Amino acid sequence: MAAIDDYARLVVRVGVGVRAGQDVLVDAQIDHAPFVRAVVEEAYRAGAHHVDVEYRDPWVRRAMVAEASDDAFGYSPPGLLARMEHAKETGAAVIAVSGGSNADVYEGLDPARLARARMPAVEESWLEAVNDRKVAWTIVAYPTEGWARETLGAPDVDRLWTAVAHAMRLDQPDPAAAWSERLDELEARARAMTERRFDAMRYRGPGTELEVGLIRGARWMAGRHETADGHRHVANMPTEEVFTSPHRLRADGTVRSTFPLALRGGMVEGLELRLSGGEIVEARAAKGEDILRAELEIDEGARRLGELALVDVSSRVGETDLVFRNTLFDENAASHIAFGAGLSWTVERVPDEQRDGEALNVSQTHVDFMVGAPDVEVDGVEPGGAAVPLLRDGVWQLA
Amino acid sequence: MAAIDDYARLVVRVGVGVRAGQDVLVDAQIDHAPFVRAVVEEAYRAGAHHVDVEYRDPWVRRAMVAEASDDAFGYSPPGLLARMEHAKETGAAVIAVSGGSNADVYEGLDPARLARARMPAVEESWLEAVNDRKVAWTIVAYPTEGWARETLGAPDVDRLWTAVAHAMRLDQPDPAAAWSERLDELEARARAMTERRFDAMRYRGPGTELEVGLIRGARWMAGRHETADGHRHVANMPTEEVFTSPHRLRADGTVRSTFPLALRGGMVEGLELRLSGGEIVEARAAKGEDILRAELEIDEGARRLGELALVDVSSRVGETDLVFRNTLFDENAASHIAFGAGLSWTVERVPDEQRDGEALNVSQTHVDFMVGAPDVEVDGVEPGGAAVPLLRDGVWQLA
Repeated sequence: MAAIDDYARLVVRVGVGVRAGQDVLVDAQIDHAPFVRAVVEEAYRAGAHHVDVEYRDPWVRRAMVAEASDDAFGYSPPGLLARMEHAKETGAAVIAVSGGSNADVYEGLDPARLARARMPAVEESWLEAVNDRKVAWTIVAYPTEGWARETLGAPDVDRLWTAVAHAMRLDQPDPAAAWSERLDELEARARAMTERRFDAMRYRGPGTELEVGLIRGARWMAGRHETADGHRHVANMPTEEVFTSPHRLRADGTVRSTFPLALRGGMVEGLELRLSGGEIVEARAAKGEDILRAELEIDEGARRLGELALVDVSSRVGETDLVFRNTLFDENAASHIAFGAGLSWTVERVPDEQRDGEALNVSQTHVDFMVGAPDVEVDGVEPGGAAVPLLRDGVWQLA
Repeated sequence: MAAIDDYARLVVRVGVGVRAGQDVLVDAQIDHAPFVRAVVEEAYRAGAHHVDVEYRDPWVRRAMVAEASDDAFGYSPPGLLARMEHAKETGAAVIAVSGGSNADVYEGLDPARLARARMPAVEESWLEAVNDRKVAWTIVAYPTEGWARETLGAPDVDRLWTAVAHAMRLDQPDPAAAWSERLDELEARARAMTERRFDAMRYRGPGTELEVGLIRGARWMAGRHETADGHRHVANMPTEEVFTSPHRLRADGTVRSTFPLALRGGMVEGLELRLSGGEIVEARAAKGEDILRAELEIDEGARRLGELALVDVSSRVGETDLVFRNTLFDENAASHIAFGAGLSWTVERVPDEQRDGEALNVSQTHVDFMVGAPDVEVDGVEPGGAAVPLLRDGVWQLA
């Protein structure tokens, strides 16, 4: 675990690029404490004004889901809301640390109550901060025993740590430089995609036969972001994707997930969706169907698509050959699609007459599910109808 | 540790007496998690609307003291402030869990910086909530390895837990009933003290020769409190004291502490004060003098007295014969005095002409230090000058 300080430094310097005098928010679980402490130290060394750590405890959430009356569900504590609003107002840096799905913690609970254990006002404030590019944010993960058990079937934190360190390029002589190079590569890919001005994307594989329309003029982007006032950050680390927001009214066909999906403390496996006119009209799952259905009920936008992301086999996450059972990692091992909110910054430069206020999806949720695999082919469809291969055997095809 | 659920039930039902629909705040360290989870469960079972847990991590505070720029000191995060204001507005129940002093965590830090690592606006909001009797609060402790090391010199959590369980009356068949009986006893003692209308208190022992004037008409009280809207709670558990607020302008002599004092993450040992006209004009300590001096510098009121409390040898904390190095326990093993804020509810019924706005001390801090021991005699001094023995060999003398 000698690399824990290197990891903290990477997250603080590259992930959010903490600036002198900036407030920093850290959201983590109590079992992330060793990493959190290293991050706090690094953030102050980088000149942070104040670092505000919010420790979550999944067992506290379990107690609420198990014992609370209905009034507790959907309640947003004023303190957490004020904390987020302040972050927005002052342009804070936000470091969110994820672990496993905590599926073992939540075992035996009523899935409907589990899905309703949300804080909508806090979530909305956060989505606003992200969409209006008010905060410099990054989501990273820290290996815990619980996550190791879920990923490896044993509490082998060292082995999980080795895989995470590979995905995070901490095994490189200069991790920050390695990330800079990779992010340049992904941005070049995103530029090429934007310049091709595809009209739609087509997915073909076992259980998948889907075409999704794109928004005219929408950008493809990579993980390096910039806030409205020019503060560079990397929204997820690791990141291996190029992505855009699709047209909310144009998706038809069926799609089957290729990885399990950690959602609201449960696992959704064997997810299958049927879409028509952009809407999810059928949803099934071999496991966790209750949690999936509850999520699709959050609002109308939850049943439409908000993101298309392409990931090829040169992904360092993919190289580990692990199913991490953690969206942050799994979404960067394989191409994925999200239902729920579209990403406003992908359509920022789209002229109003092409946006017509209807193309970008709006929702309180945003859930990525993995659709990529070696036997899933992805094409870009040109306005004239010609199909251009983008992924074959998981390899990137576009020059 | 089978008693952990019993302990949580006692704290929720007797400590704060959670009412249906009430919001509950829990403030604890991350290593109190097993107890916090039991408390959250019990609070929801008692009908709490929402339980908001704020986990602190002393290592995060250490990182701030070690690495932060000066701007971070004295900063109050808006989220924590909004959380406290909401508790005040809605009449929440507040359960604060303490552990040891964390002196090992803070080792080697600059004591002046450590003392300045405060959140004045949050502390002020909390003192207001207490003084205006807006919240039903209780402070309790949970045995951790760190606290066991400080108290016993070894991480023997089981032995510490046995002592704590004795002090908390968890070894009684019905702990809630045992507390009810003890609180009745202490209230009878407090009533007797109030009825005697003493003019001053006199302390005599090794290094101590002190007389402190009382406020005419001020009440003596026991640990059972009531909020402004009639919600009963026990402010500290364990509680073994009867206490009042002294006159801020009347204290003369010297006083030596009889226990070490945990303060702002450090330990103050061998504290000696000289007072004149109510003011602390000399302060020394064999250890931790820097921390003590910084505390006395907080404001003018920090250098005057705010509380006198009497504890006799029938204290269950005293029976354990341990120095807990935790004020919550040590202050209930022995008589103590506080410098800093007086307790407004002790003078509520004092007619205005007797209060003259000058008697009760005001400060942003309130620090209890122990002065009781078998060889310290305490007398009540009547308005005519006659001395009435209150404590001899640690035994309560008043009928």
